[in-house]
Amino acid sequence: MNKQLQKLIESIEPVSQEKISKTTLYLDTLTKPPGSLGKLEDIAIQLAGITNQEAPQVSPPGILVFAADHGIVEEGVSAFPQEVTVQMIRNFLDGGAAINVFARQIGAELQVVDVGAADEVEDKRLVSKKIAAGTRNFLKTDAMTEEQMEAAVLAGTESAEAMIARGIKCLILGEMGIGNTTAASALVSVLAGCSVDQAVGYGTGISNEVKQHKRNVIEEAVKRRNPDNSAPLDVLKKLGGYEIAAITGAILAAAKVKIPVILDGFICTSGAIVASRLNEHVKDYLFAGHVSQEQGHQFALEDIGLEPLLELGLKLGEGTGAALAFPMLEAAVRMRNEMATFDKAGVTNK
Amino acid sequence: MNKQLQKLIESIEPVSQEKISKTTLYLDTLTKPPGSLGKLEDIAIQLAGITNQEAPQVSPPGILVFAADHGIVEEGVSAFPQEVTVQMIRNFLDGGAAINVFARQIGAELQVVDVGAADEVEDKRLVSKKIAAGTRNFLKTDAMTEEQMEAAVLAGTESAEAMIARGIKCLILGEMGIGNTTAASALVSVLAGCSVDQAVGYGTGISNEVKQHKRNVIEEAVKRRNPDNSAPLDVLKKLGGYEIAAITGAILAAAKVKIPVILDGFICTSGAIVASRLNEHVKDYLFAGHVSQEQGHQFALEDIGLEPLLELGLKLGEGTGAALAFPMLEAAVRMRNEMATFDKAGVTNK
Repeated sequence: MNKQLQKLIESIEPVSQEKISKTTLYLDTLTKPPGSLGKLEDIAIQLAGITNQEAPQVSPPGILVFAADHGIVEEGVSAFPQEVTVQMIRNFLDGGAAINVFARQIGAELQVVDVGAADEVEDKRLVSKKIAAGTRNFLKTDAMTEEQMEAAVLAGTESAEAMIARGIKCLILGEMGIGNTTAASALVSVLAGCSVDQAVGYGTGISNEVKQHKRNVIEEAVKRRNPDNSAPLDVLKKLGGYEIAAITGAILAAAKVKIPVILDGFICTSGAIVASRLNEHVKDYLFAGHVSQEQGHQFALEDIGLEPLLELGLKLGEGTGAALAFPMLEAAVRMRNEMATFDKAGVTNK
Repeated sequence: MNKQLQKLIESIEPVSQEKISKTTLYLDTLTKPPGSLGKLEDIAIQLAGITNQEAPQVSPPGILVFAADHGIVEEGVSAFPQEVTVQMIRNFLDGGAAINVFARQIGAELQVVDVGAADEVEDKRLVSKKIAAGTRNFLKTDAMTEEQMEAAVLAGTESAEAMIARGIKCLILGEMGIGNTTAASALVSVLAGCSVDQAVGYGTGISNEVKQHKRNVIEEAVKRRNPDNSAPLDVLKKLGGYEIAAITGAILAAAKVKIPVILDGFICTSGAIVASRLNEHVKDYLFAGHVSQEQGHQFALEDIGLEPLLELGLKLGEGTGAALAFPMLEAAVRMRNEMATFDKAGVTNK
């Protein structure tokens, strides 16, 4: 393995059990019945553990949207044509997509990173870290070479490191790539131990017929590629996508420096499964923003052991479900940091 | 019935089907697969119907917290002593409670209205519309007289009208009152047609033994008061609380002028059931912020036909779950108002 990547993986430490214990006790001194803020209390406790701080902050948040294309679209597995990847990159840069709207709402910096779009976008607002013009068709050959896969992971790492260096306190991840539910389904069916049937969904809105075809393509491709499911980077290389690999790398970078990560939907979570397999502590740095309509997502979340914060029936990607969940993390830290204690407020405790 | 109240109830109009149809079509022109923003799309459509506007706004939001005490606490049904109601009113005024924290996060004006606290709070930041120093013990007699019940409903109406006159575009409702889950459980068991067992929960954290006692008190009280379940104001008068009545009135006031309302938890929803029975159109103006841990809440929501936006295991009240859900409404209107269309962005539609 690439030495830089190896070192990154090994650098990730466990979250702070001391801060977790301390915060658990502290929350019961605040003016509310114990446990009455439910999951918000769990979030506050986890954030203390992640950041190793008693009074953690999650603002400002930053959003990375990794974009790439997929050779597998040749097989007719998607509802939209490949040109939409680049068209949506332009829409992101012009501020008109859903993720732009939600980024503005939460005051997040949004950066779009081309790690493998099929066409060129000439725009200086776009961060170009293109590995290749799309992956290869994984029905016919490995999606990436080992070097390409590692370069894509490290492109994600660098993108996250740059954003963290600019001061973000919470990393929100998203993606864009026509065909990427097919790659993610293949990856999840191998790594999360669910069946191909369970891992395959309707993507951006294919028919039942196309879904059956997509399922067959994935089953055949997994058979032919025969990835080693105990070697997550082998699975990633053979079946994944550049944006999925970049998400893996961005997660590793954030966990290394104790920055919480909010995952978006199915594709994002497939990258998180890879990262979680590379170091057992990674999962403790992750929040699942939501559970999507794409049916494989619940299996992917269960594999990591994550419970979604929102359940809004989303199936868009781009980081939208993660951005929508950010206010819950913000509320959790404000609750921890701003609420009065029973003593201070002169309220009788039970 | 009081003529002002009668007139208010009759003034509530259906939501705009024209704006609902128009928005439903418009959302499919935005740069996302149709329906891919799930419940957020439903919210945007409902808000267009409520406000009768194509480009609705929900900011700034305003929060009303109605506080009152309950004679039924004599029966030993609560985990906290009655003095906590007034102590928490002071905590609200000083900005240290959970609802204060979440109000600041969403930029909401927060007003605390005393409609029936047992003790006096001398503080000019408190809006005093006190009907009486707590309801009477409804195991022994009706909780309120008819005049008191109507005055409490109208106190809620006036509070909402004043806040709406100051320019809020979305009304968030909350409450504080030691003993009020007992009143709400009694009310819901009669109006929502679930059993007393289904309607009774752990409140702010009572033991199984106290919960059994609370259940028995409610069952006996409902038998003795014998309210007419086809007359919601009769049920409210006999079993309710001043804060519950005020919530009913605030909802009617908002619906009258086409302002969306976000409900909080179980107690708030019990007031919404009363309002929904008074005029069949009321339910279309309501959003359920969340479903709480208090088990009767799900039955109360089902009775009105509302699906909760969040499921965070909250059981605090004060309006916290409603305030936490507000960013979903804000996101929905921003999505409607700020996203680019396929045409404008030059993105190929399916």
